[in-house]
Amino acid sequence: MSGNIDPSVLTARERRDMSEMLNIIKTRRSVRNFSGKKLKSADIAKVLEAGRWAPSGLNNQPWRFGVIENEGLRNRIAVFTRYGSIIRRAAAVIVVCMDVADSYNRDKDLMAVGASIQNMLLEAWDLGIGTCWMGEILNKKTGVADALTLDKDLDLLAVVAMGYPAGKPQKGCRKTLKNLLIKGTKYP
Amino acid sequence: MSGNIDPSVLTARERRDMSEMLNIIKTRRSVRNFSGKKLKSADIAKVLEAGRWAPSGLNNQPWRFGVIENEGLRNRIAVFTRYGSIIRRAAAVIVVCMDVADSYNRDKDLMAVGASIQNMLLEAWDLGIGTCWMGEILNKKTGVADALTLDKDLDLLAVVAMGYPAGKPQKGCRKTLKNLLIKGTKYP
Repeated sequence: MSGNIDPSVLTARERRDMSEMLNIIKTRRSVRNFSGKKLKSADIAKVLEAGRWAPSGLNNQPWRFGVIENEGLRNRIAVFTRYGSIIRRAAAVIVVCMDVADSYNRDKDLMAVGASIQNMLLEAWDLGIGTCWMGEILNKKTGVADALTLDKDLDLLAVVAMGYPAGKPQKGCRKTLKNLLIKGTKYP
Repeated sequence: MSGNIDPSVLTARERRDMSEMLNIIKTRRSVRNFSGKKLKSADIAKVLEAGRWAPSGLNNQPWRFGVIENEGLRNRIAVFTRYGSIIRRAAAVIVVCMDVADSYNRDKDLMAVGASIQNMLLEAWDLGIGTCWMGEILNKKTGVADALTLDKDLDLLAVVAMGYPAGKPQKGCRKTLKNLLIKGTKYP
Protein backbone atom coordinates (compact mmCIF):
# COMPACT_ATOMS: atom_id res chain seq x y z
CA MET A 1 0.00 0.00 0.00
CA SER A 2 1.76 3.16 -1.15
CA GLY A 3 1.94 6.25 1.01
CA ASN A 4 -0.62 8.21 -0.98
CA ILE A 5 -3.29 5.56 -0.64
CA ASP A 6 -5.61 5.39 2.33
CA PRO A 7 -6.99 1.91 2.96
CA SER A 8 -10.59 1.66 4.06
CA VAL A 9 -10.09 -0.43 7.13
CA LEU A 10 -11.84 1.43 9.90
CA THR A 11 -11.38 0.81 13.58
CA ALA A 12 -14.47 0.21 15.71
CA ARG A 13 -13.85 3.63 17.24
CA GLU A 14 -13.76 5.33 13.84
CA ARG A 15 -17.02 3.69 12.84
CA ARG A 16 -18.66 4.79 16.09
CA ASP A 17 -17.54 8.38 15.63
CA MET A 18 -18.81 8.54 12.07
CA SER A 19 -22.30 9.48 11.03
CA GLU A 20 -24.35 6.68 9.53
CA MET A 21 -24.17 8.50 6.18
CA LEU A 22 -20.39 8.67 6.09
CA ASN A 23 -20.25 5.10 7.32
CA ILE A 24 -22.39 3.89 4.42
CA ILE A 25 -20.41 5.99 1.94
CA LYS A 26 -17.05 4.70 3.19
CA THR A 27 -17.93 1.05 3.68
CA ARG A 28 -19.80 0.60 0.38
CA ARG A 29 -17.98 -1.71 -1.99
CA SER A 30 -18.49 -3.02 -5.49
CA VAL A 31 -20.01 -6.47 -5.17
CA ARG A 32 -19.36 -8.94 -7.97
CA ASN A 33 -20.57 -12.14 -6.33
CA PHE A 34 -24.18 -12.60 -5.38
CA SER A 35 -26.00 -15.16 -3.26
CA GLY A 36 -28.61 -16.05 -5.86
CA LYS A 37 -31.44 -14.92 -3.56
CA LYS A 38 -34.12 -12.88 -5.26
CA LEU A 39 -34.50 -9.23 -4.27
CA LYS A 40 -37.68 -7.90 -2.69
CA SER A 41 -39.69 -5.79 -5.11
CA ALA A 42 -40.12 -3.15 -2.42
CA ASP A 43 -36.36 -2.87 -2.09
CA ILE A 44 -35.79 -2.47 -5.83
CA ALA A 45 -38.47 0.22 -5.74
CA LYS A 46 -36.57 2.05 -2.98
CA VAL A 47 -33.37 1.94 -5.01
CA LEU A 48 -35.17 3.45 -8.01
CA GLU A 49 -36.74 6.05 -5.74
CA ALA A 50 -33.26 7.06 -4.58
CA GLY A 51 -32.12 7.41 -8.18
CA ARG A 52 -35.18 9.44 -9.05
CA TRP A 53 -34.46 12.03 -6.35
CA ALA A 54 -31.00 13.03 -7.51
CA PRO A 55 -30.29 16.67 -8.32
CA SER A 56 -29.80 17.83 -11.92
CA GLY A 57 -29.12 21.10 -13.69
CA LEU A 58 -32.39 22.94 -14.35
CA ASN A 59 -33.97 19.89 -12.65
CA ASN A 60 -34.06 18.24 -16.09
CA GLN A 61 -33.73 14.70 -14.67
CA PRO A 62 -32.15 13.19 -17.78
CA TRP A 63 -31.82 9.68 -16.24
CA ARG A 64 -33.90 6.73 -17.39
CA PHE A 65 -34.01 3.31 -15.78
CA GLY A 66 -34.80 -0.22 -16.89
CA VAL A 67 -34.96 -3.02 -14.35
CA ILE A 68 -34.15 -6.47 -15.68
CA GLU A 69 -34.68 -9.46 -13.45
CA ASN A 70 -35.45 -11.98 -16.19
CA GLU A 71 -32.54 -14.40 -16.53
CA GLY A 72 -32.85 -14.84 -20.28
CA LEU A 73 -32.70 -11.12 -20.92
CA ARG A 74 -29.81 -10.67 -18.48
CA ASN A 75 -27.91 -13.37 -20.32
CA ARG A 76 -28.52 -11.64 -23.63
CA ILE A 77 -26.95 -8.44 -22.27
CA ALA A 78 -24.13 -10.22 -20.48
CA VAL A 79 -22.48 -11.14 -23.78
CA PHE A 80 -21.63 -7.49 -24.43
CA THR A 81 -19.08 -7.22 -21.63
CA ARG A 82 -16.11 -9.28 -20.60
CA TYR A 83 -17.54 -9.04 -17.08
CA GLY A 84 -20.77 -10.73 -18.16
CA SER A 85 -20.62 -13.25 -15.32
CA ILE A 86 -21.49 -10.44 -12.90
CA ILE A 87 -24.68 -9.77 -14.85
CA ARG A 88 -25.47 -13.49 -15.02
CA ARG A 89 -25.00 -13.94 -11.27
CA ALA A 90 -26.92 -10.78 -10.29
CA ALA A 91 -30.49 -10.95 -9.02
CA ALA A 92 -31.34 -7.93 -11.17
CA VAL A 93 -29.66 -5.23 -13.19
CA ILE A 94 -30.69 -1.63 -13.66
CA VAL A 95 -29.92 -0.32 -17.12
CA VAL A 96 -29.22 3.42 -16.82
CA CYS A 97 -29.57 5.69 -19.83
CA MET A 98 -29.64 9.39 -20.56
CA ASP A 99 -32.58 10.65 -22.56
CA VAL A 100 -30.72 12.93 -24.95
CA ALA A 101 -34.01 14.62 -25.83
CA ASP A 102 -34.02 15.89 -22.22
CA SER A 103 -30.32 16.80 -22.18
CA TYR A 104 -29.30 20.47 -22.10
CA ASN A 105 -25.55 20.21 -21.44
CA ARG A 106 -23.82 16.88 -21.84
CA ASP A 107 -21.17 17.48 -19.14
CA LYS A 108 -23.75 18.54 -16.55
CA ASP A 109 -26.20 15.82 -17.54
CA LEU A 110 -23.53 13.13 -17.21
CA MET A 111 -22.72 14.40 -13.71
CA ALA A 112 -26.43 14.32 -12.86
CA VAL A 113 -26.69 10.71 -14.03
CA GLY A 114 -23.63 9.93 -11.90
CA ALA A 115 -25.37 11.49 -8.90
CA SER A 116 -28.47 9.41 -9.61
CA ILE A 117 -26.45 6.19 -9.84
CA GLN A 118 -24.62 7.00 -6.61
CA ASN A 119 -27.95 7.53 -4.83
CA MET A 120 -28.98 4.05 -5.98
CA LEU A 121 -25.71 2.43 -4.85
CA LEU A 122 -26.00 4.05 -1.42
CA GLU A 123 -29.64 3.16 -0.90
CA ALA A 124 -28.95 -0.42 -1.99
CA TRP A 125 -26.01 -0.72 0.38
CA ASP A 126 -28.14 0.64 3.21
CA LEU A 127 -30.65 -2.13 2.43
CA GLY A 128 -27.94 -4.79 2.52
CA ILE A 129 -27.90 -5.12 -1.26
CA GLY A 130 -24.60 -5.20 -3.13
CA THR A 131 -24.16 -3.43 -6.45
CA CYS A 132 -21.61 -3.24 -9.20
CA TRP A 133 -21.53 -0.10 -11.39
CA MET A 134 -20.49 -1.53 -14.74
CA GLY A 135 -18.90 0.66 -17.39
CA GLU A 136 -16.88 -1.61 -19.69
CA ILE A 137 -20.13 -2.66 -21.38
CA LEU A 138 -20.36 0.84 -22.88
CA ASN A 139 -17.79 -0.30 -25.43
CA LYS A 140 -20.66 -2.28 -26.96
CA LYS A 141 -23.48 0.22 -26.55
CA THR A 142 -25.12 -0.61 -29.86
CA GLY A 143 -25.26 -4.31 -29.05
CA VAL A 144 -27.03 -3.63 -25.77
CA ALA A 145 -29.31 -1.05 -27.37
CA ASP A 146 -30.33 -3.57 -30.03
CA ALA A 147 -30.88 -6.36 -27.51
CA LEU A 148 -33.14 -4.09 -25.45
CA THR A 149 -34.62 -2.31 -28.50
CA LEU A 150 -33.77 1.00 -26.86
CA ASP A 151 -35.36 4.12 -28.30
CA LYS A 152 -32.81 6.10 -30.37
CA ASP A 153 -32.91 8.96 -27.82
CA LEU A 154 -31.64 6.71 -25.04
CA ASP A 155 -27.87 6.78 -24.56
CA LEU A 156 -26.71 3.82 -22.46
CA LEU A 157 -24.48 5.08 -19.63
CA ALA A 158 -24.24 2.24 -17.12
CA VAL A 159 -25.51 -1.12 -16.05
CA VAL A 160 -25.85 -1.57 -12.31
CA ALA A 161 -25.81 -5.20 -11.20
CA MET A 162 -27.57 -5.91 -7.91
CA GLY A 163 -27.99 -8.77 -5.48
CA TYR A 164 -27.33 -9.95 -1.98
CA PRO A 165 -23.56 -10.13 -1.51
CA ALA A 166 -21.82 -13.51 -1.38
CA GLY A 167 -18.32 -13.74 0.01
CA LYS A 168 -16.20 -11.08 1.61
CA PRO A 169 -16.20 -7.61 0.09
CA GLN A 170 -12.90 -6.31 -1.23
CA LYS A 171 -10.91 -3.70 0.65
CA GLY A 172 -11.36 -0.23 -0.78
CA CYS A 173 -8.67 2.35 -1.22
CA ARG A 174 -8.59 5.99 -2.19
CA LYS A 175 -6.09 8.75 -2.74
CA THR A 176 -5.42 10.79 0.40
CA LEU A 177 -7.13 14.15 0.68
CA LYS A 178 -3.77 15.82 0.29
CA ASN A 179 -3.50 14.34 -3.19
CA LEU A 180 -6.97 15.60 -4.13
CA LEU A 181 -6.64 19.20 -3.05
CA ILE A 182 -6.21 21.77 -5.80
CA LYS A 183 -2.69 23.19 -5.75
CA GLY A 184 -2.54 26.42 -3.81
CA THR A 185 -5.52 25.46 -1.63
CA LYS A 186 -5.26 23.61 1.63
CA TYR A 187 -7.56 22.06 4.13
CA PRO A 188 -8.09 22.70 6.97
CA MET B 1 -48.41 20.67 -10.31
CA SER B 2 -48.87 18.49 -13.38
CA GLY B 3 -49.85 14.85 -13.19
CA ASN B 4 -46.42 13.55 -14.06
CA ILE B 5 -44.72 15.42 -11.24
CA ASP B 6 -44.43 13.99 -7.77
CA PRO B 7 -44.08 16.65 -5.08
CA SER B 8 -41.72 15.91 -2.24
CA VAL B 9 -44.10 16.56 0.62
CA LEU B 10 -43.92 13.49 2.78
CA THR B 11 -46.36 12.52 5.47
CA ALA B 12 -44.99 11.74 8.92
CA ARG B 13 -45.88 8.12 8.25
CA GLU B 14 -43.93 8.05 5.00
CA ARG B 15 -40.89 9.50 6.73
CA ARG B 16 -41.13 6.93 9.50
CA ASP B 17 -41.37 4.06 7.05
CA MET B 18 -38.38 5.26 5.08
CA SER B 19 -34.79 4.39 5.81
CA GLU B 20 -32.66 7.26 7.04
CA MET B 21 -30.75 7.10 3.74
CA LEU B 22 -33.82 7.49 1.56
CA ASN B 23 -35.09 10.18 3.89
CA ILE B 24 -31.90 12.20 3.46
CA ILE B 25 -31.91 11.65 -0.29
CA LYS B 26 -35.55 12.72 -0.65
CA THR B 27 -35.58 15.66 1.74
CA ARG B 28 -32.29 17.22 0.55
CA ARG B 29 -32.84 20.55 -1.18
CA SER B 30 -30.67 23.14 -2.86
CA VAL B 31 -30.04 25.88 -0.33
CA ARG B 32 -29.39 29.37 -1.66
CA ASN B 33 -29.71 31.38 1.55
CA PHE B 34 -27.32 30.88 4.40
CA SER B 35 -27.30 32.02 8.01
CA GLY B 36 -23.84 33.57 7.93
CA LYS B 37 -22.61 31.22 10.64
CA LYS B 38 -19.17 29.76 10.01
CA LEU B 39 -18.91 26.02 9.37
CA LYS B 40 -16.96 23.73 11.68
CA SER B 41 -13.69 22.60 10.13
CA ALA B 42 -14.43 19.04 11.19
CA ASP B 43 -17.70 19.15 9.24
CA ILE B 44 -16.08 20.45 6.07
CA ALA B 45 -13.55 17.66 6.45
CA LYS B 46 -16.38 15.09 6.63
CA VAL B 47 -17.93 16.49 3.47
CA LEU B 48 -14.61 16.18 1.64
CA GLU B 49 -14.20 12.68 3.02
CA ALA B 50 -17.57 11.74 1.54
CA GLY B 51 -16.51 13.12 -1.84
CA ARG B 52 -13.23 11.27 -1.67
CA TRP B 53 -14.95 7.90 -1.21
CA ALA B 54 -17.06 7.96 -4.36
CA PRO B 55 -16.70 5.14 -6.89
CA SER B 56 -15.00 5.71 -10.25
CA GLY B 57 -14.15 3.62 -13.29
CA LEU B 58 -10.83 1.83 -12.78
CA ASN B 59 -10.87 3.61 -9.39
CA ASN B 60 -9.14 6.54 -11.11
CA GLN B 61 -10.67 9.15 -8.77
CA PRO B 62 -10.49 12.04 -11.24
CA TRP B 63 -12.06 14.56 -8.80
CA ARG B 64 -10.11 17.40 -7.24
CA PHE B 65 -11.36 19.78 -4.56
CA GLY B 66 -10.57 23.28 -3.44
CA VAL B 67 -12.21 24.69 -0.30
CA ILE B 68 -12.62 28.46 -0.24
CA GLU B 69 -13.81 30.11 2.94
CA ASN B 70 -12.00 33.42 2.44
CA GLU B 71 -14.56 36.13 1.65
CA GLY B 72 -12.30 38.06 -0.68
CA LEU B 73 -11.59 35.04 -2.82
CA ARG B 74 -15.25 33.99 -2.82
CA ASN B 75 -16.19 37.44 -4.04
CA ARG B 76 -13.65 37.22 -6.84
CA ILE B 77 -15.25 34.00 -8.07
CA ALA B 78 -18.80 35.21 -7.55
CA VAL B 79 -18.50 37.66 -10.44
CA PHE B 80 -18.37 34.79 -12.93
CA THR B 81 -21.96 33.69 -12.42
CA ARG B 82 -25.26 35.50 -12.40
CA TYR B 83 -25.96 33.60 -9.18
CA GLY B 84 -22.94 35.13 -7.48
CA SER B 85 -24.94 36.18 -4.43
CA ILE B 86 -25.16 32.52 -3.41
CA ILE B 87 -21.36 32.32 -3.37
CA ARG B 88 -21.10 35.61 -1.47
CA ARG B 89 -23.60 34.49 1.19
CA ALA B 90 -22.12 30.99 1.57
CA ALA B 91 -19.87 30.12 4.50
CA ALA B 92 -17.60 28.21 2.11
CA VAL B 93 -17.52 26.89 -1.42
CA ILE B 94 -15.94 23.73 -2.72
CA VAL B 95 -14.51 24.13 -6.21
CA VAL B 96 -14.74 20.75 -7.96
CA CYS B 97 -12.51 19.97 -10.92
CA MET B 98 -11.56 16.95 -12.99
CA ASP B 99 -7.86 16.30 -13.36
CA VAL B 100 -7.80 15.53 -17.08
CA ALA B 101 -4.37 13.94 -16.64
CA ASP B 102 -6.16 11.26 -14.56
CA SER B 103 -9.11 10.93 -16.93
CA TYR B 104 -9.52 7.75 -19.01
CA ASN B 105 -13.01 8.21 -20.46
CA ARG B 106 -14.68 11.59 -20.26
CA ASP B 107 -18.27 10.26 -20.00
CA LYS B 108 -17.39 7.87 -17.19
CA ASP B 109 -15.20 10.39 -15.41
CA LEU B 110 -17.95 13.01 -15.48
CA MET B 111 -20.36 10.49 -13.93
CA ALA B 112 -17.75 9.69 -11.27
CA VAL B 113 -17.39 13.39 -10.44
CA GLY B 114 -21.19 13.60 -10.22
CA ALA B 115 -21.18 10.69 -7.77
CA SER B 116 -18.49 12.43 -5.71
CA ILE B 117 -20.48 15.68 -5.60
CA GLN B 118 -23.64 13.81 -4.62
CA ASN B 119 -21.78 12.14 -1.74
CA MET B 120 -20.77 15.61 -0.53
CA LEU B 121 -24.31 17.01 -0.79
CA LEU B 122 -25.73 14.06 1.16
CA GLU B 123 -23.09 14.14 3.88
CA ALA B 124 -23.55 17.91 4.25
CA TRP B 125 -27.33 17.55 4.50
CA ASP B 126 -26.92 14.84 7.11
CA LEU B 127 -24.79 17.33 9.11
CA GLY B 128 -27.44 20.03 8.82
CA ILE B 129 -25.46 21.94 6.21
CA GLY B 130 -27.17 23.26 3.10
CA THR B 131 -25.51 23.13 -0.30
CA CYS B 132 -26.10 24.49 -3.76
CA TRP B 133 -24.55 22.63 -6.71
CA MET B 134 -23.78 25.47 -9.10
CA GLY B 135 -23.36 24.86 -12.81
CA GLU B 136 -24.07 28.14 -14.60
CA ILE B 137 -20.62 29.36 -13.60
CA LEU B 138 -19.14 26.84 -16.06
CA ASN B 139 -20.03 29.31 -18.82
CA LYS B 140 -17.08 31.33 -17.51
CA LYS B 141 -14.63 28.54 -16.75
CA THR B 142 -11.59 30.49 -17.90
CA GLY B 143 -12.40 33.42 -15.66
CA VAL B 144 -12.64 31.17 -12.61
CA ALA B 145 -9.54 29.24 -13.64
CA ASP B 146 -7.58 32.49 -13.92
CA ALA B 147 -8.87 33.84 -10.61
CA LEU B 148 -7.83 30.62 -8.86
CA THR B 149 -4.69 30.13 -11.02
CA LEU B 150 -5.85 26.59 -11.70
CA ASP B 151 -3.33 24.21 -13.21
CA LYS B 152 -4.04 23.66 -16.93
CA ASP B 153 -4.96 20.00 -16.28
CA LEU B 154 -7.82 21.00 -14.00
CA ASP B 155 -11.20 21.24 -15.72
CA LEU B 156 -13.71 23.14 -13.56
CA LEU B 157 -16.93 21.11 -13.28
CA ALA B 158 -18.88 22.60 -10.39
CA VAL B 159 -18.85 25.00 -7.49
CA VAL B 160 -20.67 23.75 -4.40
CA ALA B 161 -21.80 26.54 -2.07
CA MET B 162 -22.23 25.53 1.57
CA GLY B 163 -23.58 27.00 4.76
CA TYR B 164 -26.20 26.64 7.45
CA PRO B 165 -29.60 27.12 5.79
CA ALA B 166 -31.55 30.32 6.38
CA GLY B 167 -35.24 30.41 5.60
CA LYS B 168 -37.52 27.62 4.47
CA PRO B 169 -36.24 25.17 1.88
CA GLN B 170 -38.08 25.02 -1.41
CA LYS B 171 -40.39 22.18 -2.26
CA GLY B 172 -38.77 19.60 -4.53
CA CYS B 173 -40.42 17.83 -7.40
CA ARG B 174 -39.45 15.00 -9.69
CA LYS B 175 -40.86 13.09 -12.64
CA THR B 176 -42.83 10.03 -11.60
CA LEU B 177 -41.12 6.67 -11.90
CA LYS B 178 -43.48 5.79 -14.74
CA ASN B 179 -41.99 8.64 -16.75
CA LEU B 180 -38.46 7.45 -16.07
CA LEU B 181 -38.83 3.81 -17.03
CA ILE B 182 -37.35 2.74 -20.33
CA LYS B 183 -40.08 1.91 -22.81
CA GLY B 184 -40.84 -1.77 -22.87
CA THR B 185 -39.69 -2.24 -19.28
CA LYS B 186 -41.92 -1.94 -16.26
CA TYR B 187 -41.61 -1.94 -12.54
CA PRO B 188 -42.57 -3.79 -10.48
